[in-house]
Amino acid sequence: MATRRKSMSIAEEDAFLHTFDELMEEIAEFSTYKDMEETIEWLRRAVNYNVPGGKQIRGRGVVAAYRALVDEPDTEALKECYILGWCIEIFHACFLISSDIIDNSETRRGRACWYLVDKIGDLAINDAFLLSSVMDIFLDRYFISKPYYSDLIKLFHDVHLKTSFGQCMDIQCSKKQSLGEFTMDQYRKIVKYKTCYLSFFLPVASAMILAGKTEKDDWKSMEAVVIELGLLFQIQDDFLDCFGNAKVTGKIGTDITENKCSWLIVKAFEQANENQKSILKENYGRGKESSPANEKRCREIYESLSLPNEYNKLEEACYKSICDKISKLSPKIPSIIFSETADVIYHRNK
Amino acid sequence: MATRRKSMSIAEEDAFLHTFDELMEEIAEFSTYKDMEETIEWLRRAVNYNVPGGKQIRGRGVVAAYRALVDEPDTEALKECYILGWCIEIFHACFLISSDIIDNSETRRGRACWYLVDKIGDLAINDAFLLSSVMDIFLDRYFISKPYYSDLIKLFHDVHLKTSFGQCMDIQCSKKQSLGEFTMDQYRKIVKYKTCYLSFFLPVASAMILAGKTEKDDWKSMEAVVIELGLLFQIQDDFLDCFGNAKVTGKIGTDITENKCSWLIVKAFEQANENQKSILKENYGRGKESSPANEKRCREIYESLSLPNEYNKLEEACYKSICDKISKLSPKIPSIIFSETADVIYHRNK
Repeated sequence: MATRRKSMSIAEEDAFLHTFDELMEEIAEFSTYKDMEETIEWLRRAVNYNVPGGKQIRGRGVVAAYRALVDEPDTEALKECYILGWCIEIFHACFLISSDIIDNSETRRGRACWYLVDKIGDLAINDAFLLSSVMDIFLDRYFISKPYYSDLIKLFHDVHLKTSFGQCMDIQCSKKQSLGEFTMDQYRKIVKYKTCYLSFFLPVASAMILAGKTEKDDWKSMEAVVIELGLLFQIQDDFLDCFGNAKVTGKIGTDITENKCSWLIVKAFEQANENQKSILKENYGRGKESSPANEKRCREIYESLSLPNEYNKLEEACYKSICDKISKLSPKIPSIIFSETADVIYHRNK
Repeated sequence: MATRRKSMSIAEEDAFLHTFDELMEEIAEFSTYKDMEETIEWLRRAVNYNVPGGKQIRGRGVVAAYRALVDEPDTEALKECYILGWCIEIFHACFLISSDIIDNSETRRGRACWYLVDKIGDLAINDAFLLSSVMDIFLDRYFISKPYYSDLIKLFHDVHLKTSFGQCMDIQCSKKQSLGEFTMDQYRKIVKYKTCYLSFFLPVASAMILAGKTEKDDWKSMEAVVIELGLLFQIQDDFLDCFGNAKVTGKIGTDITENKCSWLIVKAFEQANENQKSILKENYGRGKESSPANEKRCREIYESLSLPNEYNKLEEACYKSICDKISKLSPKIPSIIFSETADVIYHRNK
C-alpha cells in the first residue's frame, strides 16, 4: 500500500497528465471571450510552452500529499488534486517566465526561454500576468463553491507574497551586493522565501486544505520540514547551475554571470584565502561582459576548495536530517506526505 | 444632496487619502515577516511611488458609486469603500509598472517611470507582482469574513484576466501589425479589455457587491455604460498622448514611436490619401530609431486631416451619448453612480 502511494501509478500519471490537456481545452473554450480567439490562442501557446515541461514536483506533490492524508480518496477528490496541482505548476511558471527575463537566462528545460522565442521580449512580462490570471480563473471555476475556498485563496495569496519577497531579495542581492557581503544567513532567508513556500509548502498545504486538515500545529511542523526540503532543493539547484550537465538540467547556468547569491559563492567566500577571493571578485558577476573564461576561473576556485565534495556530503546530511524530521512528525501528518518530493530531489541531477 | 454626493467632500477626501497612509503603515507592520524588514521597506517605497500620484478615478469611483447606491452609509462601510478603492489603485499600478517597461516609456505622472528610478530595470517586473500580491493581501485582511468575499475575489480575477488580454492584444498589435492593418473594430476591442474593465467596470461593480446589488440585469446594463465611458477615456488618452501638454499630463507620449494602435492613427488611415499614408508609414513606429522629426511629421498629418477638430466633436458626442445611456438605466442603478468618473473625464486635459 505504502509503495503504491509513494509515487504515481501509471494510471494516475495518465490521469494527471490528461487533466492538463483538459484544462488546455477549457482555456480554448473560455466562452465569455467570443471576440478574443486570437489572444486566447496566444495564451494557450504560452501555457503549453511554459507549464508542462518540468519535473512537475509541485503538481505531483499535491497528489502524493493528498493520497498520504486520505484513505481511499474518491475519483472526484483526486481530480481536484490534479487540477490544484496544475494550478501550482502554472503559478510556478509565472515566476520562471519573469525570472528568466530578469536573470538574462537563455534556456530552460532544454529550450529557449519564453521571452526569447520569436522575439517575444518584454511582451512575456504580460504573459506572466496572464498565466497567474489563468491560475486564478481555474481556482474559481473548480473551488469557489467549496467550503474551504477562502482558505485556499488565502494560502495562494500568502505564498504569492512570500515568493515575490524572495525574488525581490534574490534580485536585489545580485544587483547591489558584492561577493564579500553575501552571508549564509542571507542565503537561507532568500531560499526560504523564494523557493520553499511555492515549491514545497504550497503543494502539501493545499492538499491538507482539501483533506480538511487545517490544525495550526500540524501546519507549523509541516512548515519546518518543507523549509529544509526547499533549502536542499535550492542548494542542489545552485550546484547544478555550475556543475550540472546542461543537456540534463535543460538550462545553461547564469549564477556566476549574474552575480547570484548562490550556495557555492557563499561557501567559497567562507573558505577562500585572499588570493582566491580576489580571483573570484574579478571573475564573478560580470554580466554582459562575462566570458566563458570568467566562469571557468570561478569553477576552478570552487573545485580547489573541494566544494563538489562538500556538496555531496551536505546533500547526504540534509537528506538524513529531513528524513529524521519527517519521522518525528505528529502521527496526524503521515511521513509519506513528502514522499514524492523527497524521492525526486534525492541525488537529483536535473 | 445630489451635489454633495457628486464628488467627494473635503472630509471624505481627507478620510480617503488617510486610508492610504494607514494601509502603508500596515505594510510596514506585516507582522509575519520579521526577518524581511529591508524588503518590506522596498515594497513600501514601490507602493508609495506608484500608487497614490494619479487621478485616483478608480479609487474615488468606488466611493462615489457606493454613495449613489446606499442611503446614509455607515462609517465602517465607507472605510471598506476607501480600502477597496485603494486596492483597485494598486491593481492599476501593477499594469502601469509593467506597461511602462514594455512601451519604453520614460515618464509617468511627471516623474521617471519606476523601472528607470535608480536603475531598477527589470527588477520592476517583480515589483509589479509584489504590488498585485499586496492588493490580494489587503482583500483578504479586510474582506475574507464577508459573505460576498468569493464574489469580490472572482470579480477581481475576471478583471485581471480581461485586462491582461487587453494588454496582450495592445502589445501584439503594436509589435506585429503595420499601420494599414489597424482597424477601428480592433481598436475598440483592445480598449474594451485593456481599459474599460479595470478602470470603469471594477470600481462600480465592487461598490455594487459591497452594497449587495448583484442582480445580473443591472450588471449587464451597467457594463454597457462603462464600456462607452472607457472608450471615451482611452480616446482622450490617445489624443493627449500626441497633443497634450506633457507638463499637464505628466507623461511624454510614446504612441507614435511605439507603433501603437491609437485612435489617431486608425482615424488618420481611414481618411488619409496615398501620399499622407506613405508619410505616416515612413514616420510612425520607428522605435528606438525614432526622432522628434518623425513624431512631428505624424502630428502634422493628423492636423492636416483635422483630427483635433474631429476629436473635439467626438468627445462632445460620446459624452452626450453616455449621459443619455446613463439616464435610461433601470431605476435600481442611480445615474449618479457614474458621476465621479463622468465628471473627471469630461473635457479632461490630463
